[in-house]
Amino acid sequence: MVTNSLTERLCIKYPIVQAPMAGGITTTDLVVAVSKEGGLGSIGAGYMSATLLQRQVQEIKSLTEKNFAVNLFVPQPFAISEEAVAMTYDDLSLIYDQLQINGSIDISLPTYEEKVTTYKQQIDIVIKERVPIVSFTFGLPSKQVVKRLHEVGTVVMATATTVHEALEIERLGIDVVIAQGSEAGGHRGNFLQQTEDSLIGLISLIPQIKDNVDLPLIAAGGIMDGRGIVAALTLGASAVQMGTAFLTTEESGAHRLYKQAVLQADESTLTLTDKISGKYARGIRNELIDKLAGGSGRSPDYPIQNTLTQEIRKEAQRQDNVQYMSLWSGQSPRLARHEKVRILMQRLIKETDDLLNIRYE
Amino acid sequence: MVTNSLTERLCIKYPIVQAPMAGGITTTDLVVAVSKEGGLGSIGAGYMSATLLQRQVQEIKSLTEKNFAVNLFVPQPFAISEEAVAMTYDDLSLIYDQLQINGSIDISLPTYEEKVTTYKQQIDIVIKERVPIVSFTFGLPSKQVVKRLHEVGTVVMATATTVHEALEIERLGIDVVIAQGSEAGGHRGNFLQQTEDSLIGLISLIPQIKDNVDLPLIAAGGIMDGRGIVAALTLGASAVQMGTAFLTTEESGAHRLYKQAVLQADESTLTLTDKISGKYARGIRNELIDKLAGGSGRSPDYPIQNTLTQEIRKEAQRQDNVQYMSLWSGQSPRLARHEKVRILMQRLIKETDDLLNIRYE
Repeated sequence: MVTNSLTERLCIKYPIVQAPMAGGITTTDLVVAVSKEGGLGSIGAGYMSATLLQRQVQEIKSLTEKNFAVNLFVPQPFAISEEAVAMTYDDLSLIYDQLQINGSIDISLPTYEEKVTTYKQQIDIVIKERVPIVSFTFGLPSKQVVKRLHEVGTVVMATATTVHEALEIERLGIDVVIAQGSEAGGHRGNFLQQTEDSLIGLISLIPQIKDNVDLPLIAAGGIMDGRGIVAALTLGASAVQMGTAFLTTEESGAHRLYKQAVLQADESTLTLTDKISGKYARGIRNELIDKLAGGSGRSPDYPIQNTLTQEIRKEAQRQDNVQYMSLWSGQSPRLARHEKVRILMQRLIKETDDLLNIRYE
Repeated sequence: MVTNSLTERLCIKYPIVQAPMAGGITTTDLVVAVSKEGGLGSIGAGYMSATLLQRQVQEIKSLTEKNFAVNLFVPQPFAISEEAVAMTYDDLSLIYDQLQINGSIDISLPTYEEKVTTYKQQIDIVIKERVPIVSFTFGLPSKQVVKRLHEVGTVVMATATTVHEALEIERLGIDVVIAQGSEAGGHRGNFLQQTEDSLIGLISLIPQIKDNVDLPLIAAGGIMDGRGIVAALTLGASAVQMGTAFLTTEESGAHRLYKQAVLQADESTLTLTDKISGKYARGIRNELIDKLAGGSGRSPDYPIQNTLTQEIRKEAQRQDNVQYMSLWSGQSPRLARHEKVRILMQRLIKETDDLLNIRYE
């Protein structure tokens, strides 16, 4: 298996990062198992309170001395459009009725200031706990935050979907660029360009970033096995970040029916939608997406829409109703398997080594 | 360099296919140069009359004994919406005025029957001329056509954008599947699924087709250099098809300013539009796309819209006005170079060999 200056810097044996999927998927079991097997386990902390984050960080540290990462969402200013919220209320109330949800639809909406406060508290925690690696999505940390993280020895990483975004990451003194290809599941990480201008396949994105940005690159999107790993490394990546491959493992916190849905999906049952959270994300099309897409109009921005649809998605999990969960997945669901992290990691390492060995013949 | 059963079948030295770009780009010079250098030159014959096609095929045969390919568009039924055509007329007449085009906007529109007649004549020519390799896009040839081509020893290839489409290609007894990733420039080749459901990155598409379809696979989309070639082969491809890389060569028939536009583009100046031809295609955003996108409504289907915008695009070429040409390009324009085919081919071979040799160390 390949080692390089990035694996050395991250103190990991294999160039495999478990993607920081938010929303309860990155359990302590998952993160610890990945790190123990020589990859980089990651907490998707975007939606976590500082208290919860601290608890999980401490729990992980008590279980392994291996490195792990925490991913944070950088809040972007947003406005609340009363009109858009009212229209979404109409759409949501039909779904509330259908799922027989008794709770009030009149949800208290977050403000930008609250999001910034949470983000600052999260930053304080990762610094206090000296989390070895911190990655950022949806925007970039300030130079000041990068400096504070560097002072405690933290490696800082950020997601780019275009060369322009990767150049901005380099300019801020961030250490590693995570190149998110159009194949990736879940939320798009674009922050400079519009979503439609930033859906670039990895086979195009990796070499173009590599030729223009002098940072180690982690490739994310659609990578599920040794073939994807060796291809990404050949294109110029120093490591890969894999989400969907870890989502269906036994240790992942994804709902049982969510895992099943991914295992049964194919590449053309996926869609890119901004109806669930207000920000574009790739996942398996279901009734929730179809109903919201057929609704009254434009949804409120992220994270307003995310907050508005949250109760439905939680209730769907309680009711075992896969049609109303969010089912984020990358574009390679046919390659997903249900197995233990240890088996997955061993398979990835063997496949990669076998492919590299072919070249020796 | 890699050879395998596909390169043997196609009688080419290197697993590199020059993509059959339609509309005057695949000059005899280009096709012959690629085939002479050990790749597979291809005529993009989609818009050519049978007479013109025959002339070019004979010309190529007089210049080289190497194999080459012809690509044909399979006509799909279409209807003419008077309303959509009238709305497009309004948009187009503004552009006619701006470009001071004197010709009448009242263009004679093709019928499906005419398109089928041309297609049948093209098939007769490739059979009569015993063209060694014929590929199909926008749909599949009938079993009868596949049988007639096989009878004269022609290798038949067809484009798929999803696993479903590749399975259909296999079912028809076609010999080779060309997997078109979302990175590809020019027209999308989807014929079973909607465009939005068939934009799959090569790093996801190649292994999923390879695992489910028992045909040799040629990977197309965003591949520009040795890194892309080795990545595609690692993912399961037996060869690659490269369009944009050959478009900017000296021998290509693309307008000088079109080549310049690609050489100056970056990954986020591209867009996917159905406004130029009625069918989705990827290219560099310019005034033509913006004006049509901001127009009166939904454009007529392909090939009606293509016919309607044709005069503008031809006139833009005559006027050296790059803002009104169609500027199809894949997602890796930063990797494009202006060089002779011989230099490009030698570079591709060297880069590929170097990457494969790294593995020996």
